[in-house]
Amino acid sequence: MSDCIFCLLANGNIPTATLFENDDFRVILDAGPATDGHCLILPKAHYANLLEMPDDLIAKAHVLAKQIGAKLMEVTGCDGFNVVQNNNECAGQTVFHYHVHIIPRYEGGEAIVGWNPGTLSDDVKEKLVNGFNA
Amino acid sequence: MSDCIFCLLANGNIPTATLFENDDFRVILDAGPATDGHCLILPKAHYANLLEMPDDLIAKAHVLAKQIGAKLMEVTGCDGFNVVQNNNECAGQTVFHYHVHIIPRYEGGEAIVGWNPGTLSDDVKEKLVNGFNA
Repeated sequence: MSDCIFCLLANGNIPTATLFENDDFRVILDAGPATDGHCLILPKAHYANLLEMPDDLIAKAHVLAKQIGAKLMEVTGCDGFNVVQNNNECAGQTVFHYHVHIIPRYEGGEAIVGWNPGTLSDDVKEKLVNGFNA
Repeated sequence: MSDCIFCLLANGNIPTATLFENDDFRVILDAGPATDGHCLILPKAHYANLLEMPDDLIAKAHVLAKQIGAKLMEVTGCDGFNVVQNNNECAGQTVFHYHVHIIPRYEGGEAIVGWNPGTLSDDVKEKLVNGFNA
């Protein structure tokens, strides 16, 4: 048996608060939520991150995110939600099993996603545009 | 002509630094980037947020996010990336045309996505699980 905690949760080997389940995914409430209703979309199969995920499951995960977001607005009365998916430790990923956070947001709530906007230098622009078109 | 700035950018009515383009999307560098290489996946058609997006475009946007993330790692040398999609003002959405942020991350960089983990109360758990299974 896998020792990946999200494999165990996704496949029901550890009981958890499940909002939705189908053949490919389990959607569970986050145990350390940012806000009420914060949940995780977990594939039942193990993929470390987005780069490992097969395209058909990526597609299904995000169509499911839309359905879950709509239902969260109905059930919690939240005013919107963030969809967040972190890849690798430097990006804040703490469990290395692909997952999508759906975070309900309420008027007047604290910031969850934010940055100090930088400037786009000509050097960086040139490097990126050339790199993508090489 | 639409007065939505992302409609204008996505459709090439305003020149911008484009990393990738196809029939459905344009991927552009963010003008106020969180990190070098921060870019936005913009559908050419206008949808305010995830709830308005047709499922086939949601699927395509996130398969594209995988491709863009992989290419960003190659071109920028970043160590990972965040995929962030905000819905409605309370969630930090500032332009009401669906978009996916791809934010390259580098070791030792500042936090971009974060929260103080709360606790999952039995009341909230019951409300959510019952609400989703009603």
